[in-house]
Order: sequence, then structure tokens, then C-alpha cells
Amino acid sequence: MILDTDTATDDALAVLLAVTSPKLKVEALTITCGNVGFEQQTKNALYTLQVAGKKGQIPVYQGSARPLVREVHGSATYVHGSDGMSDSFFPDPQQKPEKEHAVDAIIRLVGMYPNEVTIVAIGPLTNIALALLREPSIAKKIKGLYFMGGFYKFYGNINPGATYNAWVDPEAARVVFQSGIPITTVGFDVSVKSSVFTDEDYVRVEKLGTHYADFFMKINRIRRKYCKEHQKMNGSNHPDAITIAAVIDPTIVTQSVSRFVDVETRGELTLGALAIDELGVWGKSPNATICVEADELKFKKMVFDTLKMS
Amino acid sequence: MILDTDTATDDALAVLLAVTSPKLKVEALTITCGNVGFEQQTKNALYTLQVAGKKGQIPVYQGSARPLVREVHGSATYVHGSDGMSDSFFPDPQQKPEKEHAVDAIIRLVGMYPNEVTIVAIGPLTNIALALLREPSIAKKIKGLYFMGGFYKFYGNINPGATYNAWVDPEAARVVFQSGIPITTVGFDVSVKSSVFTDEDYVRVEKLGTHYADFFMKINRIRRKYCKEHQKMNGSNHPDAITIAAVIDPTIVTQSVSRFVDVETRGELTLGALAIDELGVWGKSPNATICVEADELKFKKMVFDTLKMS
Amino acid sequence: MILDTDTATDDALAVLLAVTSPKLKVEALTITCGNVGFEQQTKNALYTLQVAGKKGQIPVYQGSARPLVREVHGSATYVHGSDGMSDSFFPDPQQKPEKEHAVDAIIRLVGMYPNEVTIVAIGPLTNIALALLREPSIAKKIKGLYFMGGFYKFYGNINPGATYNAWVDPEAARVVFQSGIPITTVGFDVSVKSSVFTDEDYVRVEKLGTHYADFFMKINRIRRKYCKEHQKMNGSNHPDAITIAAVIDPTIVTQSVSRFVDVETRGELTLGALAIDELGVWGKSPNATICVEADELKFKKMVFDTLKMS
Amino acid sequence: MILDTDTATDDALAVLLAVTSPKLKVEALTITCGNVGFEQQTKNALYTLQVAGKKGQIPVYQGSARPLVREVHGSATYVHGSDGMSDSFFPDPQQKPEKEHAVDAIIRLVGMYPNEVTIVAIGPLTNIALALLREPSIAKKIKGLYFMGGFYKFYGNINPGATYNAWVDPEAARVVFQSGIPITTVGFDVSVKSSVFTDEDYVRVEKLGTHYADFFMKINRIRRKYCKEHQKMNGSNHPDAITIAAVIDPTIVTQSVSRFVDVETRGELTLGALAIDELGVWGKSPNATICVEADELKFKKMVFDTLKMS
Ligand SMILES: [Ca+2]
Ligand SMILES: [Ca+2]
Ligand SMILES: [Ca+2]
Ligand SMILES: [Ca+2]
Repeated sequence: MILDTDTATDDALAVLLAVTSPKLKVEALTITCGNVGFEQQTKNALYTLQVAGKKGQIPVYQGSARPLVREVHGSATYVHGSDGMSDSFFPDPQQKPEKEHAVDAIIRLVGMYPNEVTIVAIGPLTNIALALLREPSIAKKIKGLYFMGGFYKFYGNINPGATYNAWVDPEAARVVFQSGIPITTVGFDVSVKSSVFTDEDYVRVEKLGTHYADFFMKINRIRRKYCKEHQKMNGSNHPDAITIAAVIDPTIVTQSVSRFVDVETRGELTLGALAIDELGVWGKSPNATICVEADELKFKKMVFDTLKMS
Repeated sequence: MILDTDTATDDALAVLLAVTSPKLKVEALTITCGNVGFEQQTKNALYTLQVAGKKGQIPVYQGSARPLVREVHGSATYVHGSDGMSDSFFPDPQQKPEKEHAVDAIIRLVGMYPNEVTIVAIGPLTNIALALLREPSIAKKIKGLYFMGGFYKFYGNINPGATYNAWVDPEAARVVFQSGIPITTVGFDVSVKSSVFTDEDYVRVEKLGTHYADFFMKINRIRRKYCKEHQKMNGSNHPDAITIAAVIDPTIVTQSVSRFVDVETRGELTLGALAIDELGVWGKSPNATICVEADELKFKKMVFDTLKMS
Repeated sequence: MILDTDTATDDALAVLLAVTSPKLKVEALTITCGNVGFEQQTKNALYTLQVAGKKGQIPVYQGSARPLVREVHGSATYVHGSDGMSDSFFPDPQQKPEKEHAVDAIIRLVGMYPNEVTIVAIGPLTNIALALLREPSIAKKIKGLYFMGGFYKFYGNINPGATYNAWVDPEAARVVFQSGIPITTVGFDVSVKSSVFTDEDYVRVEKLGTHYADFFMKINRIRRKYCKEHQKMNGSNHPDAITIAAVIDPTIVTQSVSRFVDVETRGELTLGALAIDELGVWGKSPNATICVEADELKFKKMVFDTLKMS
Repeated sequence: MILDTDTATDDALAVLLAVTSPKLKVEALTITCGNVGFEQQTKNALYTLQVAGKKGQIPVYQGSARPLVREVHGSATYVHGSDGMSDSFFPDPQQKPEKEHAVDAIIRLVGMYPNEVTIVAIGPLTNIALALLREPSIAKKIKGLYFMGGFYKFYGNINPGATYNAWVDPEAARVVFQSGIPITTVGFDVSVKSSVFTDEDYVRVEKLGTHYADFFMKINRIRRKYCKEHQKMNGSNHPDAITIAAVIDPTIVTQSVSRFVDVETRGELTLGALAIDELGVWGKSPNATICVEADELKFKKMVFDTLKMS
């Protein structure tokens, strides 16, 4: 499994879940443009590996620091803090990123293990698109792609049609959705319904007293505040974490639908929308499985079980 | 009340409900571009008045035969038949359209009865937009606008974001939604959930044996077939009719939400989408009430009661 | 002749030329959205009539204070001064605008004098588009439309593709260019090549000592400064004036070409471009005559002759 | 020098000029998507090397068979013949393409020879954009990029704003023009004014009786006919050839201007336009030198001198 991430707050939790899970073999972390500064995201990924006790065991590859066509948009430090880790300002990690480019690493790994590699993309799809453009043949060799993005019968938090990851690089998203890779999406809506850590949950986490729990508490400080104040949630949602959780334990997804999905790259009010052809008006075969419902308890149990580990 | 309509099949039923209701005073029918040929639509409206026994009692004004900016798109004769009345080829109506232009009539009537006139728009919003552009002051004098269009937490039947009326003239829709008129929308989703006449319903209508029932049977032949075969409904839906029904009896709407809504005029995959800011990301006050749920039984009872009349 | 104008600085000179010319019969001034505040533009037009000794002799009709679809963009007071007259702050004019709307007046006048009325549009095309949308039949009855806008084998001063008038309301421009009215354009390029009043010209104007010359000096103060400092011209250009001059004396146009022209309404970098199909790739018949070259001396002589009058 | 080409007719002539010139060291031919089928283009490049007597001496790398974001558009076989060589149906070339991807080769060569490699792009800019996205640092190490595309104070032959290469992949063109690489463009206009081979020229070529002359005659048959019949030229123009000629002998460019240029990726009528900021309205420093005029005689002499060689 390759985890493609713009590592900040919730990505870090996803990384922790992924690399500590006995069910996943994480071949690589690949860093994509998105939440905060590119070098900072790389450090966040490397530091999270160190916290997870995996220092030097999982290579981290840097990918594209910018979207395909658009200029780099302002970062989302208001959600994640200036360091992407809720202003924790962790020390520099000891592991360094690999010299190989993330796009090359993706192409190489997929080529080495045809039909075995799952890619989990919890950031904008720039790296995956670049890999597909550079080596289109991988589309048929990737086992599947999980993408954190969009929603089903709901609305976006960037604009009414879009959520962050597809909006940052809609052209990349379009390339990926048109590629033929079997795609599964876990959307913003599912994260709001089934991944929110409430104040009670935070109290429970804090009581764990473990190293991981402490890490969780630290990196979610600003995120938690933001979600409560600006998104009126009853706590912090964890879209990236529940996406990786659905890979670790597919039974976490309790309902899903298969649809043809394309990406709006021109809209003024709906830029980055995953256009789901619910009614089949385009007459095309489904290219994506959209997670509709998830098992909140199972997800939280997985997170708690992980946080207890250390 | 002014009923703005691109009169074909379901518009005709809406006209019948409107002009026979003791609860509404229909000041004018205004014809807008849309479903089928403009002159044919005008005839359909006039003929429906004649069927309703209102010949010469309600003036019909012709409005714009084309959208604001876009070229006239191909008509929807596949839904409504070549004459817009399921190929009933009714004789020419005796009443003629007025000489006054629909846009002038709208401006005049709203000016004559400030804060008293409700406009019910069951076609593209071209006429209303032109009236607003010609005389912006009417925005504050229109009591309210009911618009058949869009959907809530659902998807479109023209593209994933849009339904017919807003898609035909998205620029007009944008002008109207930005005008400040209090808007209520009844969407495609509501029509599918709560206005479908099933085969059993059709049997009941046929048995009524009335003049109106006969008219209903005739004008819905092609529509009914289309809805069953191409839209996989269990019968024919009646979006325009349920919109006017909600004006006649507001208790037909059993759930609604207030939101800020703007219209996508540039999207490639979502052109004509009513962009509903569910999460308040644009920070604007609601400008529309979106009907979420309707009372199917009440709606059907209203239709049956009307069809029994003649 | 109907002169449609967003009256400020150079529009005022155009009005002066038009209404004092024995060769033109100006039936109406119609005010469109554009350069500065709408009421101020109306006052500017009325005041110019007063200066021209035409008070009460030519009706002024107010049209649309906003473009068809887009929001009102920021005004061009940096070119024209806050009052649109280079901060001359003239007293209120004695004549008042008519009650009839400009769009109605245009439709009425064209209907009264079919194939006789020329419209000269020296502002955004909103009023003309609204008239065409309201009464499409006028397209065949308008003798011709002169439009100040675009350029030929050159570039724009708003963006590389566009100049002010078409950029403010590209949708309106599109409606007009697609209407079938015989169109003649006088572009920004022609105004730069053949209508620039240099310092020497200004000295000559000042020496005239007439009422009109004084008016000219006043209303061009800020415009002159702007053109020299920001547009690096050797003085002030007079696009609106040379457009009306070309109507008064067609021999002022010394070269022109006939082309098919459409308007870019979606471009990011070229919004409002008059897309001239020079190479005939769209295979359509010409709909516009584009002025390529004008007689500078003749134009200036006309202006001087007019300024000497009073 | 790296020559990036969608090899068909005029590209083949450009390849011939490049690889036989003693003034250029061609490190690589890289194949980009464009004129005709991707494998056919590769064969055309390899066959041209063979004709030029360079078989096995210059590596040919295959790049991207599709544009960055858009679907592969229909090919231009109407200009170039179904094989891209005016239906010459040459035998398969003996040299094979390299295994290395063109994008990798570009990055490697630029990295090996910083500030020494000039790239000449005579097709859509997909490969160059992908190299920049994959390794942004090369932007500062590329000595310069010559691009066949656009025009100056003229109009396009695909739409009024655009010519083929930028229109096929406008997003790629945008990435390249925003990259900071020093760019020189040779446009369609220059090719029409200064590179047209007339019937007399063809007679002269035929008389040469050389191997190269024969090749020239063959590959231009359909192109020549197309240019005369559909583009109303007095013969066949050679935009790719005159671009490489300008690299071989810079004095062929007799006039040029430096401007800031961006690429229109959204326009409906002007998609792919090189938006040249002639008037400096965007306030940005020039990023491109645009060839305005070329020396036709010098160009033709270079072609004849080359055709005589064999
Ligand atoms: Ca993420
Ligand atoms: Ca309707
Ligand atoms: Ca003006
Ligand atoms: Ca080429």
C-alpha cells in the first residue's frame, strides 16, 4: 500500500493508523501539495513515522509541490496550524526523505507488484495524476485507489460542490477519475457523520496517557477548535483517518454505491465538484464506489486501540 | 398570481389546477422559452384555458422566445411530444395572446399591486430576469417567487448538478436568485418522491370519465411513457403541478430549509446547478426556501378533486 | 440616430459633436451602465446638452444601470474623475431625464422609423441587448449599429483580448453581435492612432476661447493626465468622439474590413474579446465592418470646427 | 539541443534541417502528442533520421501520448495525411525508440548540461510541462525554449485566438509560459509571411533530384494541397521548419518583441490563445520573445542548401 498525503493533523493520524496496523504493508508515504508548506508536510510525515516507532522503516518520497495547472493556492493553516500540526512545532525528524521522486516511486512500485498495490490518497491527486500521465500503463496495474474527497447527497465545505482535496487540483482529480483505476471515495459527509471525536472522546484519549494519545492530543488542538467554532461540529472530524480505517477494515464501510464520477474543472461556484451521475444521464459505466455510511463505533475503536498501543 | 410557463404536458396540468382553484386569482399566464416551440407553447396555454372553461377570462402574454445569452437549445419534444401535449394535436384555441409583452405585463401587474403578486415560474426564468433587468424596482414589490427547479441533497436529470429549467437559461436564473425576491423552490427530487402518478392512478383518472380527466389522459401519454422507460419511474412525475399545488395549499410542503442559493453559469459538468450553500461557506443570508418534502396524498387528492370538477 | 452612452469625458465630446452636427438628427440619448455612477452619467449627458445649447430639445432616456448577468464592476473614475467629467463638478442640469425607459424608447423609435434609425453605442451594449431580447424584430429594422469597441490586429487595454465596453458586459455584446444588425466597429487601436489630442492641440483648443473649448478643456483634465501617464500616449485619445465622427462623416474611415465577429464570454485572460474570424475558420458570413484606419486630420478638423462654434 | 516534435510533414522537414545542420548538436528527439497517431509520429521521426543518414546516431524518446488534462482531440490527418507524411506510407524505420521516457530524458539531459540545452518545441507542450511538473528545478537550467505557436497582431487558424500547438494542450502551454524558462515563439503568421513554398519553389526542389528533395516532395503532397485549397496560401507554409531555422541561424529573425505572455485555458472562442500583454496591463515582466518578422530568402536558401546535400 502507498499512502499519498499532504501531511497535517488528520493525515498524521491516518499515517499512525496505517503504519501501526498489522493488516497493512505500507510500502511508501508519498507527499503531495496541499494543506501546508511542502517541506513542512514532509517533516510532519517523517516525524509521525518516528512517533510511531517506524523511523527508517518506511520510505517517504516527495512528490509535486504544486497542482498540475493552477497556482499553489493559500494553505489551510487556519485548520491545521502554521506547522500543520496545530502549532506543536515538533523537532526535526531524524529520517530524511528519499531522493527518488514520489511519482517515480509510485510507478516503480506499481510496476514491481502489478495488481497488488493499493493507493490511498488523502490529499490532492497531483502525484497520482502525474504518475498516470508519465506512465499510463499503471492504471491497469493499480489494485485500487481510495480517495478522501467529495460527498454523496450532501454539500461541500469549500463551495457547495466541492471539498478540499479535489478543489486544490481539479485537473489532477479529473485525470485520475478518467483513468480507469478502480476508485473508492470516502467523503467529507461520512467524516462528519461517523468520525467526529467529541469532548468526551478527547477526555478518554487524554486519560490513556500513552505516547500516541499525547501525540493525538497535541496535533488536534487547533483542528478541534476550528471544527467546533467554524464548522459547528460537536468535535473534530477525521476524514483522512476514517479513509485509511476503511482500508484497514473494509467492514467499517456499511453502505456504498457505484457511480460514474467526473470532476468539474471549470465551474465558478462548483469548481472541484465530483460530479456523480446518480441518474445515469451520461450513460457511462460506474468508475467509482462511493462510501455512503460508515460504522462510527468501529472506527473509534480502531483509533482507541491504536492510541493505546504505545 | 402570475403563472410563467413553457406550456407542455405537466405545465398544462399546473395551469388547470391554478385557474380552477378558488384559492388563487390568476392575473396572467406568461409564456417563456423552453419545452417546445414558442408559438406551440402559447397555443397549449390558451387551449388549456379553454378546456378549463376560462376562455377569454385570463390573459396570456408572450414573453421571450429565447434565453438571455445562449442560443435556443433543442426542445424537449422527447418528453412532451412534438406539440408539447403528447401529440394530441388539439385544435387551435379561440382566445388569442395579448399584444402586451409578458415582461411588460409582469412589470405592470407588480407595479399595480405592490407586495401582492406572487409569481409562479414553472419554466426557465428568462421572462422574470428580463423584467428585473428592465425594472429592478419590482424585486422589492414581488410578494414571492415559486420556482420549479433544482433539488436538495440529490442529483440532476440533465447533468449531475442541474435540472431543465435552470439549465436552459442559467444566466436568467442567476439574475433572479441574486435579485432579492423571496424565492421558494420545488425541485425535481420532490416531484419524483411525491408527485408520481402510477398505473393505478391512471386507471382511477380514466374511470372519472370527466372532460378534465380525459384531457389529463391525453396530454400525459408520451410523458408517462418517457418517465417510465427513460427515467425509471413508477409512472409520470408532475413537477409543475406539485409546484402550483404548493402555492394553492402551502401545507403540501411538509419540510423545507432556508439557504443561500446561487447559479452555476460556467460549469462544464454542472452548468445550471443551483449551488446551495448548505454549510454557509459563503457567509450570506438565505435567499431561498427549498422544499424538501411534500405530502403526496394531499397533492394527489387536489389533482383528483380538480379532475372530477368538469 | 440614437446615441447610447455611459456619459463621461469622451462621451460628452461625442454628444457635443453629435447634437451640434447639421448632418445628424439625434432622436434620443440613452444612458447605459459603464464609466461612472448611473445617475451621474445621466446628469453628464443632460449637462452636455445644456452646454451645447440643446436644453429640452433632445430627450434623454435612462436604461439599465447594470450589465445583463454580471455584477456591476468598479467604475472607471481613475480615467474620468469621480464625476466622470474630470472632477468639474458642474451644476445640476435643468433638463430632466424622460420617464420612458431607454429600452422602450429604442424599441419605439426603431418601430416608428423602420430601416432609418442608426444606433451609435459608445458604452457597454446592455441597453441594445435588452431591447433585442425584449423585441427581437427590431434587429431587422435597425439601419445600422456603430459600436466603439475592440481593435484589429492589436491588443486590449483591459486584458490582451478586450477593451472596456465589451468587457463590462460581454453577454450583452454577444447578444448584439449575434443579432443580425449590421454592425460597424471603431476600435481602441484606431482611437490611439488617429484621435490623440496632443499638448499642441490642447494649446490650440485653449486659444479658441469659446464656451465649447472651455468645456473641452475642463472635462478632459483627468483623462488627459491618465492617458499620458498610464497609457503612455502623447496626449488624450477620443474613441467615443471619433466613433460619432465616423457617423457624421463616413469618409473619416479610410480603411475597413468585413468579418464575422463573436464575443468571448468565458475566457479568463480574454473575457470580452471581440473574436474576429480573420481566417474564416468558422465559415460564417461577416456580421461586422471593422474600421482599420481613420483620417486623423479630418477628425481633428471636425472637433475644432465644432469647438469654434459657440 | 532537444527537438520536441509531433512528427508529421513539416516536423519532418524541421528534423531534417536540425540533424543535418553543422551548427546544431541534436541530443535527442522527443515525441509529443499532436498531429497524428503517437506510434506513427515516432516512426516518422525515426524514418526521417534514416533518410537524413543519421540512423542510430540520435536517440528518439517517446513522451506523452495525450495532453495533460483534456482528452486526445481528433488528429490533423486532413493536413498531414493518414500517416502524417502525406500518405507516403514509408517502410518501418530500422532504429527503434529508446526505452527511457521523453520526460525523463529531458530532465536528465538538462541536468547533465545545465544552462547549455536549448529545447525546440514544434508540437504541443505536453512533454515540457510534464518535465517541469516532475522536476521544477530544470526551469532555471534550460538555456532557452523555442516554441512554434501563436502569432503577433494577427489571428489564429484554429480559432481567432489560437493556433494548433497551444490549442491542443493549453494547460501544458500555460505551465511552460509560467515556468520562467526564457521562451522564443515563432508564430503561424511568420510562417505564412516568410516560409511559403510556392509552385515555383516546388519546381526548383523537384529539379534538385536529390534524395532529400524527393523526400520533401513526397511528404508535402497533401500538406501543399491543403494549404492552397483550405488556407488560401500561395503554396505550403513551414512553421516548424522556420522555427528550427531560426535556431540554426538567429539572423533569420529580423524583428522581434519581448512581452509577457500567458495562455487562455478557459475561453470558449479563444481557447489556447497566447495572451500577449502588449499594453502592459498586467504589469508583469516579459517572459517571451515573439518573432515578428523573418527573412524569407535566408530561410529558403537554408532549406535548398539542405535539400541539395544528399
Ligand atoms: Ca490530507
Ligand atoms: Ca414547465
Ligand atoms: Ca463611453
Ligand atoms: Ca509540429
